[in-house]
Amino acid sequence: MKMSDGVEQAIHSVAMMAGLQPDGVLSASALAEFHGVSTSYLLKHLQALSGAGLLTTKPGPTGGYRLAHSPNDITLLDIVLAVEGTAPAFRCSEIRQRGPSPLPGKPTAPCGINAAMLRAERVYRDELAKVSIADVLGDLRAKDTDGAIAARGCAFLELNERRRNAN
Amino acid sequence: MKMSDGVEQAIHSVAMMAGLQPDGVLSASALAEFHGVSTSYLLKHLQALSGAGLLTTKPGPTGGYRLAHSPNDITLLDIVLAVEGTAPAFRCSEIRQRGPSPLPGKPTAPCGINAAMLRAERVYRDELAKVSIADVLGDLRAKDTDGAIAARGCAFLELNERRRNAN
Ligand code: FES
Ligand code: FES
Repeated sequence: MKMSDGVEQAIHSVAMMAGLQPDGVLSASALAEFHGVSTSYLLKHLQALSGAGLLTTKPGPTGGYRLAHSPNDITLLDIVLAVEGTAPAFRCSEIRQRGPSPLPGKPTAPCGINAAMLRAERVYRDELAKVSIADVLGDLRAKDTDGAIAARGCAFLELNERRRNAN
Repeated sequence: MKMSDGVEQAIHSVAMMAGLQPDGVLSASALAEFHGVSTSYLLKHLQALSGAGLLTTKPGPTGGYRLAHSPNDITLLDIVLAVEGTAPAFRCSEIRQRGPSPLPGKPTAPCGINAAMLRAERVYRDELAKVSIADVLGDLRAKDTDGAIAARGCAFLELNERRRNAN
């Protein structure tokens, strides 16, 4: 089971957007170049984040993306579900109702195996829901003893932030 | 993110094998037919379970598979890792070190985003590790008020169990 690479790209992009001014946006191509990934691929994920209501879009050639909510209100779970879809990783195909001697009648209770797999998915999601982008940034800052991470982000924003009132 | 269908097949197959006599085995084709899935596909998963030390194999035309351990000692996590591989779902590609201005120097600490994603994977795995095949069977029995599940399993084993001393 492998999550798409898009999740890492999306979380890092959202963390970068948390540093924008209230009227600033970032283009998909600037974010893609910064992260060394393909613009078309990143664009797909930014659109998914947008579709899930996590980003807002400023259209047009000087447009781009910014967070739709405070970094406190965007969690890792929000981003994972936006990029990967909301279906659970384990999908019961009701195998007990297949084959030449399926379980007779319509089962009333879900299969216990499915229930156990979904319980694990629940704790996984709960854990991701506990971590906001604000937490991630706080953690980055705490580890950034020489300021290299902050300097890299600031240099990028300095060069690439598009302010709404600048066009 | 989607787990392979093989996980459902593997867990149900292992649960069925828990009903074998101490000297009994089941063939991949019997298990595949019972579950209405392709033998070659199921075989791949049974071999993965075998490779992970969860099943033992009796070779030959009258051979088959049986559990290598007590149903108390085989967990859902064991089966998921055998079928899906042991790598975590989220795989950090060190995106922070890519692009035209990578983070300078070799990072000493793992990225906080990666650390948070791996913490969630940890609780997921811990949850799956809590559930043994014996638990799954106990749960099935508790819900099997009319005995239909047990009857279906017994009929299958009656017909398909291969006893070691029977050849
Ligand atoms: S029938 Fe799907 S997990 Fe049991
Ligand atoms: S560099 Fe991989 S998750 Fe941050």
